[in-house]
Amino acid sequence: LIQLGHQVKMGSRKAGHEKALTWVAKNGAAASQGTFAECAHFGEMLINCTAGGGSIDALKSADLNDLNSKILIDIANPLDFSHGMPPTLSVCNTDSLGEQIQRTFPGLKVVKSLNTVNAAIMVNPGQLSAESVIFLSGNDAAAKATVAELLRSGFGWTAIVDLGDISTARVTEMLLPIWIRLMLVQGTPLFNFAIIR
Amino acid sequence: LIQLGHQVKMGSRKAGHEKALTWVAKNGAAASQGTFAECAHFGEMLINCTAGGGSIDALKSADLNDLNSKILIDIANPLDFSHGMPPTLSVCNTDSLGEQIQRTFPGLKVVKSLNTVNAAIMVNPGQLSAESVIFLSGNDAAAKATVAELLRSGFGWTAIVDLGDISTARVTEMLLPIWIRLMLVQGTPLFNFAIIR
Repeated sequence: LIQLGHQVKMGSRKAGHEKALTWVAKNGAAASQGTFAECAHFGEMLINCTAGGGSIDALKSADLNDLNSKILIDIANPLDFSHGMPPTLSVCNTDSLGEQIQRTFPGLKVVKSLNTVNAAIMVNPGQLSAESVIFLSGNDAAAKATVAELLRSGFGWTAIVDLGDISTARVTEMLLPIWIRLMLVQGTPLFNFAIIR
Repeated sequence: LIQLGHQVKMGSRKAGHEKALTWVAKNGAAASQGTFAECAHFGEMLINCTAGGGSIDALKSADLNDLNSKILIDIANPLDFSHGMPPTLSVCNTDSLGEQIQRTFPGLKVVKSLNTVNAAIMVNPGQLSAESVIFLSGNDAAAKATVAELLRSGFGWTAIVDLGDISTARVTEMLLPIWIRLMLVQGTPLFNFAIIR
């Protein structure tokens, strides 16, 4: 995001998190860090990169006024590692983390995306050997168009599939079990799905 | 299967099902029909193509001696249409239909496969524009090798991924929600996933 010219603030529960400070030191004036609440205030667009089990609490620590009308790209997955590997989903089938966030913060424009690939693939899908697919779910068409433009022009995604409203976050979050299994079988997280017609 | 030279008996709850009779009439001496129990007795290899909600009952109608030591390719999915479209899964996340069948019939060699594609793709993946993937899950390595050979030599699958034991049936059954959503978005069931590295 910084390479694309954006100002980026990385949040954590307390300001001054060691990893955030290291990242800021490496990335110059465009990079800053602070609490989740400070990030929510700072950003024109928000990205939820927290662990799924902590996403609602992280967002609750923000001032509601700082969430209203903003786009939140929700890349988190509701993985439950409490019973070891492989993780299960703490919510699925009839609900999803994306829907829970949207219900809890009706003023946010939640766009579920990027949750089906590794972080290195999110921002550089062109490193794979062929075109692969990324999904969008959300209730706000304009917000989805804005996110799609970031994915396309910013990151280089060419196959972007709009699955529908935020309830379709269920179907991409339920991809995680096979994604994790394939990571274990193949020995790498650097892969993605394509849709072959 | 008949084109490959196999004798095939199609089962239903009662012998003489109208659709089975029509299929037999079209397919000559290699085709026959009967009850699920008669099919279980007849087959060297069994294929569960029943609706997921009826699979256990269909198998329970067989003589247990006719199930022991046989391979069952389980292509069913535990879809629950009782609340309308899209269906939910009647079991997922911490269990699967494949595991339920294996637990209920320990003597069966259950191989979950083909449940992630439309019937027309199952037997002819070459109709798609590029190579796509099919998965295997099961506890018996020799049974999986036998099924893989049918997929490869019989149907033309080239990308066959063994995900592991029958508990990995969870991860392919949980592909159904996104498969159904993509079918609705794209307007066709004639697609499949590929894995891009």
